[in-house]
Amino acid sequence: MTDFSATHAKFHIPDGVIYLDGNSLGPLPVAAPERMQKMMTAEWGQSLIGGWNEHGWMAMPRSLGDRIGRLIGAEPGHTVLGDTLSIKVFQALAAAIRMRPDRRVILSDTGNFPSDLYIAEGLVDLLGDGYTLKTVAPEEVEGAIDDTVAAILITEVDYRTGRRHDMARLTRAAHDAGALAIWDLAHSAGALPVRVAAEGADFAVGCTYKYLNSGPGGPAFIYVAPRHAEQAKPALAGWLGHDRPFDFDLRYTPGAGIERMRVGTPPVLQMAALEAALDVWDGVDMDDLRARALELGDRFIAGVEAACPDLVLATPRDHASRGSQVSFRHPDAYAIMQALIARGVVGDFRAPDILRFGITPLYIGEAEIDAAGDTLAAILREGAWDDPAFRTRKAVT
Amino acid sequence: MTDFSATHAKFHIPDGVIYLDGNSLGPLPVAAPERMQKMMTAEWGQSLIGGWNEHGWMAMPRSLGDRIGRLIGAEPGHTVLGDTLSIKVFQALAAAIRMRPDRRVILSDTGNFPSDLYIAEGLVDLLGDGYTLKTVAPEEVEGAIDDTVAAILITEVDYRTGRRHDMARLTRAAHDAGALAIWDLAHSAGALPVRVAAEGADFAVGCTYKYLNSGPGGPAFIYVAPRHAEQAKPALAGWLGHDRPFDFDLRYTPGAGIERMRVGTPPVLQMAALEAALDVWDGVDMDDLRARALELGDRFIAGVEAACPDLVLATPRDHASRGSQVSFRHPDAYAIMQALIARGVVGDFRAPDILRFGITPLYIGEAEIDAAGDTLAAILREGAWDDPAFRTRKAVT
Repeated sequence: MTDFSATHAKFHIPDGVIYLDGNSLGPLPVAAPERMQKMMTAEWGQSLIGGWNEHGWMAMPRSLGDRIGRLIGAEPGHTVLGDTLSIKVFQALAAAIRMRPDRRVILSDTGNFPSDLYIAEGLVDLLGDGYTLKTVAPEEVEGAIDDTVAAILITEVDYRTGRRHDMARLTRAAHDAGALAIWDLAHSAGALPVRVAAEGADFAVGCTYKYLNSGPGGPAFIYVAPRHAEQAKPALAGWLGHDRPFDFDLRYTPGAGIERMRVGTPPVLQMAALEAALDVWDGVDMDDLRARALELGDRFIAGVEAACPDLVLATPRDHASRGSQVSFRHPDAYAIMQALIARGVVGDFRAPDILRFGITPLYIGEAEIDAAGDTLAAILREGAWDDPAFRTRKAVT
Repeated sequence: MTDFSATHAKFHIPDGVIYLDGNSLGPLPVAAPERMQKMMTAEWGQSLIGGWNEHGWMAMPRSLGDRIGRLIGAEPGHTVLGDTLSIKVFQALAAAIRMRPDRRVILSDTGNFPSDLYIAEGLVDLLGDGYTLKTVAPEEVEGAIDDTVAAILITEVDYRTGRRHDMARLTRAAHDAGALAIWDLAHSAGALPVRVAAEGADFAVGCTYKYLNSGPGGPAFIYVAPRHAEQAKPALAGWLGHDRPFDFDLRYTPGAGIERMRVGTPPVLQMAALEAALDVWDGVDMDDLRARALELGDRFIAGVEAACPDLVLATPRDHASRGSQVSFRHPDAYAIMQALIARGVVGDFRAPDILRFGITPLYIGEAEIDAAGDTLAAILREGAWDDPAFRTRKAVT
């Protein structure tokens, strides 16, 4: 049984803060500053260029990739780190559509994170030749899969509402129609058990700075199913995806399997922070985490619904249909969230009317859930959010 | 006049090491660990998600981009950080060829860094439709520019020999033929004065972990000439290049000017190290740096040629035709470099037969140049490199 009081102690949460925004940026692992100092002074400082060999920097995208692979149910050796999630979406899409050369449609849904849609839009615009991005409502994806679809591009958990797609079912529907399935795990990896291999995902991508706690700008990851690993053509054919990068050949030869999804020099400093963050996960069982997150989520929903009749639950109640966040709607959601943050309860706002709370059992327990609910209720009861200071939008939230 | 003894003190060079490999990975700025600790504990640790606003993380790709812009002669507001150099090459190429829709040729040369060629190869393979990458010898680029060429993709300074292209001349030749010029400044930024605006470059890209000393995996940069900034179409249409990323629109609208060359979440931790590294540059005049680098380079060439008759200079003697590194050829270059490193003089090897030495006046002076030459001469005189331990290739060099 996973000991969540032990994991809680492994994060730095500032005094007076209840942090329910780990679905946007995970908190600092206590061990990360020391790991980073070692990277800066002992590795970079002392080994200089030799660090690539002496400290295994070049291998980190694969070794850390496999540690994430465990959390998403990937076969060892088929997950690699690098770049940002948007770049990884581009890589997966470009590879997938070339595996279905007679088809021209990328199918996604309006609940997808906009950057995924933008990247697909950019790719089809670059390619021309009849390629299109078709976007339907989340509940209409399955019915829209037909033999024109090269790939579906689906984010498993909706970034606003926490609504969860059925990965096994949609993947099967895609395969039945001869299409490929690309899964964005931004709000899944580290949030719930994912089984990319067992459920047949063709490609999966995700980021590490949310539930995995790698810090701002931490690298993304990509998984390619073993059955495709030697066929996938890398559109972003960078030297570190070459079969022999240090031969400096003039022609590109893709590396073996997932290696070809590497592009440029990996972000070694960011990976040091990620390494410390992944150490926290070593003792965590994803089924334990899921059970705990649902229990805490239910508790939060019950508490808020009882005390805040003006808030409307945006997250599905059904466990199977939701991720690890709980969201409520209110016309003044922005101001309410600002008032909440001013009292030390940090969630976030998503346009137009969503109050979003990440339920992250690694460092959140009953006490935090209850205190957050009580604070939210007090703010609504007092009308404390109705203040010009809370209504002024910040540039970034 | 730039005070190079002052800049020398701002880098950590391990005891007993003469570091002539800053053209591969710059050394640790003394101020970087403390800046990183502040980022980790005070910014990420204490501000959590609020760091994006409170500490200006979201603005760093532009503000640090402009500090690099000064070093490459860019107009303020037209350089942005992010991703890796390979990704930035892809962005520049994809934008450029779409600005010349009737042309199908990307022209480069065999002296280019292979990743640039691979990225171009990946792009033309993705696009099909007659797009080709044409690669000629470096001295044949100018003659190969014709009205089929959409863009030339040229690395100013050859990563092996240090041979330098004439940016003004090739850019003019490209423009005369109606083509665009993309310059890779990997071995130029921080190595010599670059004048992207004055010399008419259409796009420029580069990395920060070499002469700019941002640490392993530091972010890349891209410059788009102001005259193209509102026309360039971003093929990698990520959300942070959107005009209003936090509106979460379902359709992509490119941001103003260089903003659209942003893709995903910026690497905030890597940028903290870069920020400390750029502080060192504040008092540095690029013309002073260039004069000093050439003086030191000449001294190294003279010393080595006098003492090591078996080494053949690979770098042009002519100042205008070389960058800030000095390279020699020898059939046993690999083993010689390993023997040299074992004695604390760190340069590097590039296949098949190049000994490469970065001349970086920020932390290298006459004493280091003379000691490096003496050590090299001793190794050759003694035949000390002819040892199986030095002949065994490492995976990464």
